[in-house]
Amino acid sequence: MRVTEVSTPAVVVDLDVLERNLDRMAAYCAEHGLGLRPHTKTHKTLEVARMQLARGAHGLTVAKVGEAEVMATAMAESGTSQILVAHPIVGEEKIRRLAALASGVDVLVALDSLDAAKGLARVAQEVGRTLGVLVEFDSGSHRCGVAAGEACAELGKAIRSLKGVQVRGLMTYFGSVWGDEQHRSEEIARLSVDVERTIKAFQRAGLPLEIVSAGSTPAAELSHLVHGITEVRPGTYVFNDLNTFYQGLCTLDDCAVRVMTTVVSTCVPGQVIVDAGSKVFSSDLLSAGPKHGYGRIMEVEGASLSKLNEEHGFVQADDYGAFAVGQVVSVIPNHVCTCINMHDEIYVSRRGEITGTWNVAARGKVR
Amino acid sequence: MRVTEVSTPAVVVDLDVLERNLDRMAAYCAEHGLGLRPHTKTHKTLEVARMQLARGAHGLTVAKVGEAEVMATAMAESGTSQILVAHPIVGEEKIRRLAALASGVDVLVALDSLDAAKGLARVAQEVGRTLGVLVEFDSGSHRCGVAAGEACAELGKAIRSLKGVQVRGLMTYFGSVWGDEQHRSEEIARLSVDVERTIKAFQRAGLPLEIVSAGSTPAAELSHLVHGITEVRPGTYVFNDLNTFYQGLCTLDDCAVRVMTTVVSTCVPGQVIVDAGSKVFSSDLLSAGPKHGYGRIMEVEGASLSKLNEEHGFVQADDYGAFAVGQVVSVIPNHVCTCINMHDEIYVSRRGEITGTWNVAARGKVR
Repeated sequence: MRVTEVSTPAVVVDLDVLERNLDRMAAYCAEHGLGLRPHTKTHKTLEVARMQLARGAHGLTVAKVGEAEVMATAMAESGTSQILVAHPIVGEEKIRRLAALASGVDVLVALDSLDAAKGLARVAQEVGRTLGVLVEFDSGSHRCGVAAGEACAELGKAIRSLKGVQVRGLMTYFGSVWGDEQHRSEEIARLSVDVERTIKAFQRAGLPLEIVSAGSTPAAELSHLVHGITEVRPGTYVFNDLNTFYQGLCTLDDCAVRVMTTVVSTCVPGQVIVDAGSKVFSSDLLSAGPKHGYGRIMEVEGASLSKLNEEHGFVQADDYGAFAVGQVVSVIPNHVCTCINMHDEIYVSRRGEITGTWNVAARGKVR
Repeated sequence: MRVTEVSTPAVVVDLDVLERNLDRMAAYCAEHGLGLRPHTKTHKTLEVARMQLARGAHGLTVAKVGEAEVMATAMAESGTSQILVAHPIVGEEKIRRLAALASGVDVLVALDSLDAAKGLARVAQEVGRTLGVLVEFDSGSHRCGVAAGEACAELGKAIRSLKGVQVRGLMTYFGSVWGDEQHRSEEIARLSVDVERTIKAFQRAGLPLEIVSAGSTPAAELSHLVHGITEVRPGTYVFNDLNTFYQGLCTLDDCAVRVMTTVVSTCVPGQVIVDAGSKVFSSDLLSAGPKHGYGRIMEVEGASLSKLNEEHGFVQADDYGAFAVGQVVSVIPNHVCTCINMHDEIYVSRRGEITGTWNVAARGKVR
């Protein structure tokens, strides 16, 4: 079956593009001696996790315990055993599941408070396990994280005194490294200072620095410029999307995912409706570039989705006559992570031919 | 287990509020002799569909064939047999499934083009079934739909000549009836004219008017003011949300859904992070009222979610000291339909006690 023949709406991954993206990041990390611990939030599939591990990823990153439970399968097969939950896990039920997982997998949790660490420690101790902890510090994204520098060491020392958890190092999110190349480079230079003084504070306190985890897709290939980092955690690089394109991180040919959708209505003058809305794309706005629109239509020059209802996509085009009911078009989504998360199953293809389907196994694992 | 004790993030439905909302709409329709064909897109569960059918709904509305397949189960149990797919279904694979469904269920499809009708007719004829058709006309929402009036009758007549499909009446979406009470009333008066002349055009052409389907939640309880309508299709009324609240359609006490979420970080000054982001709430913006924010936190006066990342909710509050790591708060979402759609399972409760879980059976049925 050709890609254009799938029943729509449907997400289709181009395997050649995916493999090229995976190879590029693996080569960058190998060249600079950086560990690669990809964030699986983008693809949520065992298939891509296996491809990442086969290309030398030394572990995986997830955001939720339920995602860790899914990804543990891929870890076990590969002989790699270290998973990082890059989100403070707070709540006994979730920590019990995490501790259960820690029998076969080396589980690390990033957190930024003694309260969160105490919660982990209490349950881990009770069941006789040890959970690894990375102290999260804020290097400029202002989301989670202790202030860079001395405060991290203070928290690290307080956690060191708890049983059931073990400080293993530091984590930060390079969420402020965003936008065009110049802005990204300036931000990398600025946050390098924060990273360096945080590492020094940890060293002075005699705290372990086995792992200093950083990165994001926009920051990934600048990460070798930041001294002291041991690994990066890019996610979006596997597929890319309009956000990474508009930041100049990739070409449109590097975008591995297309949403196939069918024109279903051309009745209202100056308007075309397709069968994919926010329940297919997500409602995520474009966060770079023009900052409006919900996806670029590849078959018609200048055409995009200007608005989404739940089940209706509104096309914006110079020539609405280029569309007819029944026509199938392919769309590059704004934000591929939240788009994939809408789907239980996605198609894979090579050179325009559908070669199989993948279960989005970690989709909907909200806890 | 108390509602505040669930592992977070989690969606919890208050059954008392849900039942009150269901009763109110059923009573309104009964009072005015209007049929009720609720849109199941909001709840996507067999449980709520059964409650709607038990309260006199004479059929159900869905947007996708996959949703129709799920909801057919509830239909069969109730002895009600008519389902409306309120979206033009274009594409052979989907029509084949629809035709298969039409063996046990009376299937209606709303559409606005001869091309869409021909697609249905071709497959239905081939498998020896008949699919019902409602001609969709545009009464002001400017999304799908033939222009109101004569153009509808023209399309109806063209479809009448096809085998495998049968014109049964008209459908329109009152999507322009939105906002405050005065605006909604003015819009109802305006579109009444369109509805009337479309019905008259159908009558003149001798086309069937067994069903004239209209409505939406904001328009639902004004629908008796529009002459000629036989049924309404509200969806959101079952749960309500911040959008319906800000339109004055309900009180906060009429909002049946809370997202339970836990504070996981308070490190960054003037900021609190909870464990529910766009993969829990969806990224839908508020479409009424203040039009910013992603949900109202009920425990702390004036607190809301100002920003969402995929797994992080950013709290905005007058007093950040009111939050501590580990604290569980409940949030009314902006748009409950897209929020429910993120979850495989939701909790149900009565008077603060969890009484069970429901499978969101029609979630993720993108085709």
